Amino acid sequence: MAAPLTHPLINDGWFMEKNSQWPGQAMALKVEEILHVEKSKFQDVLVFQSSNYGNVLVLDGVIQATERDEFSYQEMITHLAMNSHPNPKKVLVIGGGDGGVLREVVKHECVEEATLVDIDEAVPRVSKKYLPNMSIGFEHPKVTVHIGDGVEFLRDKTNQYDVIITDSSDPDGPAEGLFGAEFFQLLKNALTEKGVFSTQGECMWLHLPLIKKVIEFCKDLYPRVEYAYTCIPTYPSGQIGHIMCSKDADAVIREPLRKFTPEQEAKLFRYYNSDIHKAAFILPQFAKKGLYE
Amino acid sequence: MAAPLTHPLINDGWFMEKNSQWPGQAMALKVEEILHVEKSKFQDVLVFQSSNYGNVLVLDGVIQATERDEFSYQEMITHLAMNSHPNPKKVLVIGGGDGGVLREVVKHECVEEATLVDIDEAVPRVSKKYLPNMSIGFEHPKVTVHIGDGVEFLRDKTNQYDVIITDSSDPDGPAEGLFGAEFFQLLKNALTEKGVFSTQGECMWLHLPLIKKVIEFCKDLYPRVEYAYTCIPTYPSGQIGHIMCSKDADAVIREPLRKFTPEQEAKLFRYYNSDIHKAAFILPQFAKKGLYE
Repeated sequence: MAAPLTHPLINDGWFMEKNSQWPGQAMALKVEEILHVEKSKFQDVLVFQSSNYGNVLVLDGVIQATERDEFSYQEMITHLAMNSHPNPKKVLVIGGGDGGVLREVVKHECVEEATLVDIDEAVPRVSKKYLPNMSIGFEHPKVTVHIGDGVEFLRDKTNQYDVIITDSSDPDGPAEGLFGAEFFQLLKNALTEKGVFSTQGECMWLHLPLIKKVIEFCKDLYPRVEYAYTCIPTYPSGQIGHIMCSKDADAVIREPLRKFTPEQEAKLFRYYNSDIHKAAFILPQFAKKGLYE
Repeated sequence: MAAPLTHPLINDGWFMEKNSQWPGQAMALKVEEILHVEKSKFQDVLVFQSSNYGNVLVLDGVIQATERDEFSYQEMITHLAMNSHPNPKKVLVIGGGDGGVLREVVKHECVEEATLVDIDEAVPRVSKKYLPNMSIGFEHPKVTVHIGDGVEFLRDKTNQYDVIITDSSDPDGPAEGLFGAEFFQLLKNALTEKGVFSTQGECMWLHLPLIKKVIEFCKDLYPRVEYAYTCIPTYPSGQIGHIMCSKDADAVIREPLRKFTPEQEAKLFRYYNSDIHKAAFILPQFAKKGLYE
């Protein structure tokens, strides 16, 4: 019989998300069983079955997805961008190796090709085994997957993608390059004329100065830049932001350009709807001040 | 030298908010020093100095306020209600013994009298000692404090208060009576003709069936009932709701009837503004479905 799996962040039956990126606080989840522990080529990969949040994927000690609440993040990072473009046919996802963003992208029937580039093959591999409702995104016939570095992948891409979604982990690890100015320039080259991208934009309660810096990079490159947020209980401080950019100076972003009907929304989504698209850009006073003053 | 204080929810230097009301999850905060531990007549009272969230008040094991993020809850529960009334002169706060809601109420110059009723004298007492930026609310000349049961206090009150704000702990403890049908009837009697009240409305990610039940009580009594929410990192799942009722069938609630100027908002608030007032009522798809279908 193999020895039971262990992980340094799991003690006395609880996972605690202690991390220097959010000192002095930690989301804790009760663990039923550790399902997978691996040092991949790029990061520490952990999957555990929690008592109340389903299976949980953790990379370098940071919760990436729980089966219970992943829908809010996946839906918002995807549909805020997709519905800000008039007719997205070619879509690129950078990161997102759990498949959740792909699952959302292909809900748009106008999509012809959805390509995913993740640096770490371990993430799709373990997600296919332990997160079937997310990795279902890989099974769609319009989807192609490349394992490789997102920055490298973009170098020779010009005018190819209508929407690019960066679903990365935090900048403190293999995703570091996905928060730099070079990356945002490459993204711009790869986008078509009215191209839109959205990227994981950290949390306003924790990282306003970093978010402000990234928004400023983006404003040097794109005529339209906006910041939105989504509530998600198992991300640090219960929230995650989205930085949204468009190459089209007339793009609205803060309101959906394309809308689903209420019936479609009821069928397709658990978080997103066209009203919450608009509300996601309304910031509390401290964040407005921290980002825009 | 006195023995160092201890508390069963603080171990290895961390407070963990384990609770049967949110099984399998816990917000954890690093503790610098335990400042106060007491069994009051009604509840377990704990105050600790955290490493990154300032001083923290905990009642019956549940975080009530941290100095770092209390502003969002206090501002929203107060100003959503206050700005939904045309001219609130007499205001009643039930619970709220930390003084934070009072601090917000008296920002409205139209207020002539703000009365607070808390069942437990221990809460104002320890708040005055350890949460000075909240308990400052008690010092305002328009404020009167009664220590006693909110339900009893309301029994002989008719047509007296323009706005009533219930800032209670969860229904699993001394606040149980503040979630029942009798209480909502007494509130209605105590309110003036166009009276408005807001109450702590739990968290949509955890307690939709309870919230739905309370909304249904309210709809039997009031012509206008709405549900809003505020983000707050240290409450369970990072969010708290507000049930908002008005006796005025023409009340809007979802939009502020009275507005501060942007300059006043910048000076007075860290979370609330008139745009976020409106956005707070826009629910994600799962909550819309859970509450209104």
